[in-house]
Amino acid sequence: MEYTSMNESSLQAELELLRNEYKKAGARGLKLDMSRGVQGEDQLAITEDMLRVLDKNDNFKAENGIDCRNYGLLDGIPEVKRIFAQMLEIPANNIIVCGNSSLNIMYDTVARSMLHGVAGTGKPWLGQKVKFLCPVPGYDRHFAICESFGIELINVPMKNDGPDMDMVEELVSSDESIKGIWCVPKYSNPDGIVYSDEVIKRFAALKPAASDFRIFWDNAYVVHALYGEPAVQISLFDELKKNGAEDMLYIFASTSKISFPGSGIAVIAASDANIEFIKNIMKVQTIGHDKLNQLRHARYFGSLDGIIKHMEKHASLIRPKFECVLEALEREFTGKGIASWTKPQGGYFISLNLLPGTAKRTYQLMSDIGVKITPAGATYPYGKDPEDSNLRLAPTYPPLSELSEAINLLCLCAKIACIEKILAK
Amino acid sequence: MEYTSMNESSLQAELELLRNEYKKAGARGLKLDMSRGVQGEDQLAITEDMLRVLDKNDNFKAENGIDCRNYGLLDGIPEVKRIFAQMLEIPANNIIVCGNSSLNIMYDTVARSMLHGVAGTGKPWLGQKVKFLCPVPGYDRHFAICESFGIELINVPMKNDGPDMDMVEELVSSDESIKGIWCVPKYSNPDGIVYSDEVIKRFAALKPAASDFRIFWDNAYVVHALYGEPAVQISLFDELKKNGAEDMLYIFASTSKISFPGSGIAVIAASDANIEFIKNIMKVQTIGHDKLNQLRHARYFGSLDGIIKHMEKHASLIRPKFECVLEALEREFTGKGIASWTKPQGGYFISLNLLPGTAKRTYQLMSDIGVKITPAGATYPYGKDPEDSNLRLAPTYPPLSELSEAINLLCLCAKIACIEKILAK
Repeated sequence: MEYTSMNESSLQAELELLRNEYKKAGARGLKLDMSRGVQGEDQLAITEDMLRVLDKNDNFKAENGIDCRNYGLLDGIPEVKRIFAQMLEIPANNIIVCGNSSLNIMYDTVARSMLHGVAGTGKPWLGQKVKFLCPVPGYDRHFAICESFGIELINVPMKNDGPDMDMVEELVSSDESIKGIWCVPKYSNPDGIVYSDEVIKRFAALKPAASDFRIFWDNAYVVHALYGEPAVQISLFDELKKNGAEDMLYIFASTSKISFPGSGIAVIAASDANIEFIKNIMKVQTIGHDKLNQLRHARYFGSLDGIIKHMEKHASLIRPKFECVLEALEREFTGKGIASWTKPQGGYFISLNLLPGTAKRTYQLMSDIGVKITPAGATYPYGKDPEDSNLRLAPTYPPLSELSEAINLLCLCAKIACIEKILAK
Repeated sequence: MEYTSMNESSLQAELELLRNEYKKAGARGLKLDMSRGVQGEDQLAITEDMLRVLDKNDNFKAENGIDCRNYGLLDGIPEVKRIFAQMLEIPANNIIVCGNSSLNIMYDTVARSMLHGVAGTGKPWLGQKVKFLCPVPGYDRHFAICESFGIELINVPMKNDGPDMDMVEELVSSDESIKGIWCVPKYSNPDGIVYSDEVIKRFAALKPAASDFRIFWDNAYVVHALYGEPAVQISLFDELKKNGAEDMLYIFASTSKISFPGSGIAVIAASDANIEFIKNIMKVQTIGHDKLNQLRHARYFGSLDGIIKHMEKHASLIRPKFECVLEALEREFTGKGIASWTKPQGGYFISLNLLPGTAKRTYQLMSDIGVKITPAGATYPYGKDPEDSNLRLAPTYPPLSELSEAINLLCLCAKIACIEKILAK
């Protein structure tokens, strides 16, 4: 029976039962963590051989003859550029291979715009009013970059096939202080939504009021399917190119959840003009990124095909974890009228929406008994979920037994928070 | 006999001889490169085992239990911090271990100041008049960072024991737009000068007009001795601390010329307040740097002692190259009155000063016959050597036979340029 249809005494009785269970759980001194999208230990193990791929007889040369041990080659070795070119469906010339962190590239890209503007305008954003659109729920670290520069963030609701494009078009075309939008176009963080081709086409047709408007296309989960082959999408770069508007796009990607989270390689991909502009500044910033690590990745994966095969191994390890969470949500929440959730086909998260006004309380109840989840509010700019409803569940890190325990406790805590909320009305 | 004391006809005769030699060299289609401070192939080979140090049975754990394969730990693993703490004589807590490039850290440190100011003031440099002092000759990439942000660069002459401190004190204390100074305190680039303890004490006693003044102490060659143990200097950090002025200092270092130029690890070291300020911004920029590469370095070198022993191997390979260059300079220039040069005890360069007005011409003559050297002017801000006299010689990269040829040709070209200059007067 739905909690909202139950009378007060039945709810009180249910609450007492749940609180007893909660008290028992609290007495167990748990220490569980399902807070971040991180590889589990079993996942880390499957890539270990990559660390030994540069062997005794290696000449450490990239296919263009560059010695990867030495300085130089700002934009990365050709064999790695080629793999990312296949993955992101963009010519290899439009790619710069950087260090271990796409977040760092995104940060630098915003910082560069603050200091130097973007290709074509060269007018620094610093000192101007700058706003970014943030499809919500979204990724807290995207928001944090903007917040650190005082950029104003505007929520745009996510629909089933991507951001609310009516709202995006309206805002972008009418307000020239809007300089960017954060997108995770495939298996979005946290909803796991795959942007539809129609949404991508509408992105390609945007007519921004600001000539220095940019789409920050964080394709973090481009090959991160849970079931079979990754979802196929039309290429935003190609669509923009048809409209002569390819300068509007920055694409980001990394191997953080393909090889090693701390020791992968990350790229930015963009139009000729953008790449030239970025390289001109980047060449002052560094002599070059870690090419031995690039070579390791190239030798180990070989091609996009090698990566896809490797992702199937990851999927086989994390699929049971996603299913464990989904089964618990189904079992505990169905018919209660207090929760809805996404059933992602890829990515790293499940997005849970509870009764408005209960997410923070649920998070608090979890914390108090030693179960760490992503803080309520984190999926919204400024940490403020206007509905206090969304929680991001990250199933991949804990071993299955711990995850199972954590998700059961989450359901328990959410039910307590929801009954408390209903009773307080 | 000194060229400047020779009569015109003798000079003409000498010039003709030299030009004949030059013509012959030009006909050989040479392709030699002694332009940058880069490890030679023989040097790269001595560190190869580091790439295989993470072996099959490794648990990939740092000594604090962190799994180096996964995300996290912004400031680096303890065992690497400890090695740099010994090397830079600063507590491990005052160190952040970053990626593969100290240049990138320096760039980010200036960029951060442009955007956010420095610890204690928080007033962005962007929009203010900002000047940096540049001991000259110096390192072109330091200058390029400042030039990219429109920071005005002021030349300060180098003396035998460091920058002209009378001038530094005078400028720093009187002009509050002076926000920084670039220093390579040990085996300076390009002179190979070791700052004296007296100079370091005068740095520690600076009373800057600007409260956000910072010393950019690029200790790139701190353990890079050519003969025996590295030079010993008092610690600027300790001296500043005695004066309660330790916030004035940023120290930079890397293993680019210890392990691999493209795949080393780099650090920034600074006061508690500076480190806290930097981490607060850096935590938005990245989740963490490449800890597996940190672990590789820690396992391979073990301690500062391990690094010092490794540097002796490097020294044994590059010492003959330095001596080859010095012998040629000695042989070809002694008594000619057209050149003086440094005899460094460490670092990567020899600094050559020719007759004023001849460095560019010498560089051009070299280029025209296929010998690449660091461009004349590169050792000065804006690429402008006011005397057009200084050339930076980088002996380490070419094999000895090529180096020997290149340096002989340099002497030839310099003599031609000098005679032309004298005759033109």
